[in-house]
Amino acid sequence: MNLILLFEDDFTDNGKHVRLSGRRHKHVIEICRASVGDKLCVGLCNAKMGTGCITALDDDALEMDVTLTECTPPALPVTLVLALPRPIVLKRMLSLVSGMGVKRIILFHSKRVEKSYWKSPVLKEENIKKQLILGLEQAKDTIFPKVELQPLFKPFIEDVLADIAKNTISLVAHPQSADPCPRYVHSHVTLVIGPEGGFIPYEIEKLINAGFKPVHLGERILKVETAVPALLSRLF
Amino acid sequence: MNLILLFEDDFTDNGKHVRLSGRRHKHVIEICRASVGDKLCVGLCNAKMGTGCITALDDDALEMDVTLTECTPPALPVTLVLALPRPIVLKRMLSLVSGMGVKRIILFHSKRVEKSYWKSPVLKEENIKKQLILGLEQAKDTIFPKVELQPLFKPFIEDVLADIAKNTISLVAHPQSADPCPRYVHSHVTLVIGPEGGFIPYEIEKLINAGFKPVHLGERILKVETAVPALLSRLF
Repeated sequence: MNLILLFEDDFTDNGKHVRLSGRRHKHVIEICRASVGDKLCVGLCNAKMGTGCITALDDDALEMDVTLTECTPPALPVTLVLALPRPIVLKRMLSLVSGMGVKRIILFHSKRVEKSYWKSPVLKEENIKKQLILGLEQAKDTIFPKVELQPLFKPFIEDVLADIAKNTISLVAHPQSADPCPRYVHSHVTLVIGPEGGFIPYEIEKLINAGFKPVHLGERILKVETAVPALLSRLF
Repeated sequence: MNLILLFEDDFTDNGKHVRLSGRRHKHVIEICRASVGDKLCVGLCNAKMGTGCITALDDDALEMDVTLTECTPPALPVTLVLALPRPIVLKRMLSLVSGMGVKRIILFHSKRVEKSYWKSPVLKEENIKKQLILGLEQAKDTIFPKVELQPLFKPFIEDVLADIAKNTISLVAHPQSADPCPRYVHSHVTLVIGPEGGFIPYEIEKLINAGFKPVHLGERILKVETAVPALLSRLF
């Protein structure tokens, strides 16, 4: 937690003073080992970042005077379209991409996504939010990514994805493809990433028909947790 | 497991026939759901890759005739010099970098590395090997990375690192630095990555004196598991 993310209901007055208990309070005591007078990096959900000066700290709560004047780091110009991973991987992926500055994430179904994954509690709104917060706190950002669910492959690819990809560089990561992933592009990218085990040929064909270019990262088969930071870092 | 990694003692004759039980046997039955006659991707430790054709498969063991004619994917031209992470992170990092094609990994001590990490069972030779195998199996590679331990910061930086870095691009990842990490370099890189919480100023100074250039990946503070694939992917 390199930034303490604040929400409107943490404020005890009209935007200057906060009172925190629970996870963030515990973190300040146990990890930051902070005391009254210390300054911490804070940020208001979907708003500016700044400094919180500790005015009171005991076993129950932490109080701070906050000043919020700094801008958040720039977002990555990408729409990440990710085949729904296994729940345990999804958890890590949500905080990972939230930390890297992705602001729109679409989770979609494909043949090699187990249907049971769509029933995972990780997909509950409050659990998604929890993971996104971890990423923002790690990276020092306050702007929440939007996460959308697309549990039907064909209607998503045929009716929704083309609009999303309009006027963007449209890429699908596909280890068997002929072309390497481009480097350091200066446009918005729509980046599709398949499931463990990859896309089936029908799905790649549908994506190509929708205007997506298959690209690879070399001969090695990477886990999705490795492939996503590798792709984003290479593209931007 | 996209490749079944074989060792000399798996062979029942002079290099054509193997018999496997345990983890790899279980994987072939439960995950690959393979049967006699099926062909699997195999590779011999520190040697070539190829195909294994299943000749027998029962509850006890798997037998294959193997042909090993394919070369391994190219290694990354990098020496990764990593401040020893927390044991749970180290486990993931070893398989991650093994999978990405790093062939020399040096784990070193720095101020913000807890001394207890050096006593972790993850650092036992057989446990390091286990993690490296997972990475090779994922990425389809057979060449084991070398992992070296440097538990003393000063003698390592002063007496050892300069020789390692000789004739390479010497970089240290440091979020507060002025220069962005270079892209797509075509030389061997010695890449130093600090601990959670970063280097202390004295350490950065020592690294600069040893010829290392501090570089950053943008304003965001990334976890080491994200920073490493992001840095490697940007460099190569």
